[in-house]
Amino acid sequence: MAECIFCRIIAGEIPATAVYEDAEIFAFRDINPAAPTHILVIPRRHIGTLNDTGEEDRALLGRLLEAARVIARDQGLVAGGYRVVMNVGEGAGQSVFHAHLHVLGGRPLAWPPG
Amino acid sequence: MAECIFCRIIAGEIPATAVYEDAEIFAFRDINPAAPTHILVIPRRHIGTLNDTGEEDRALLGRLLEAARVIARDQGLVAGGYRVVMNVGEGAGQSVFHAHLHVLGGRPLAWPPG
Repeated sequence: MAECIFCRIIAGEIPATAVYEDAEIFAFRDINPAAPTHILVIPRRHIGTLNDTGEEDRALLGRLLEAARVIARDQGLVAGGYRVVMNVGEGAGQSVFHAHLHVLGGRPLAWPPG
Repeated sequence: MAECIFCRIIAGEIPATAVYEDAEIFAFRDINPAAPTHILVIPRRHIGTLNDTGEEDRALLGRLLEAARVIARDQGLVAGGYRVVMNVGEGAGQSVFHAHLHVLGGRPLAWPPG
C-alpha cells in the first residue's frame, strides 16, 4: 500500500511524532489536533476500515484499545478523562483509509460526539 | 454489582431494546439517542472503565469492536458510515461506570467528536 499515508508514516517515509510503538501497533500525534492531546493509534498492518476486519483480527482490535489505554496513561489523560473514537467510512469522517483510533483528551469533551 | 444499571439491564431487571448478544457481549439502544441509530455495546462482565482493563482483557476488548462492526452491518450503517466512541472517565462524559462502546450512525457526524 505504497500510496497509504499511514503506511508511509510507519515506513518512516513521512515524518510523524511517535508516542507509542510495538510489533503490531504504531501511534503518533494528529497533525490537526482536535484537543490538547490527540493521538492516532493504528495497526502496522494495512486494514482499510473496521468493516474490513473479521474474527481473525479480534486480538489486533483488542490491542488497539489496549494501546489507547496505555497511551492515555502515559500522556497523563486518566485523571481528566479521554475519549476514544473510530470513524468508519467517509460519512463518519474517516479521511485516511487505514483504520485508526483517535485518542482525545486534555479538554472537556462535549456530547454528542460530533 | 447490583447497583450498576448496565449489570441490571444484562440481568433483565431493567428493560432495554437488545440488538445483539452473545456469551460475552450485550448491546442495546441508548435511551437518549444522539443519532438515528445509537447503540451501546457492553461486556457482560462488569468492568468500570477502559482504565480498569489489562492484557488479560485484550480478547474481550477486541470482541467489543468486533460486535460494533457486526451491529453496524446488521443495522444498515455501513453505506452511510458510523462512529464508534468510548468515553473513559467523567471528564470525557462517561456517565455509567460499566465500560461501553457507543455506535452512532444514520446522520452526518461532525468533527471534532465533541
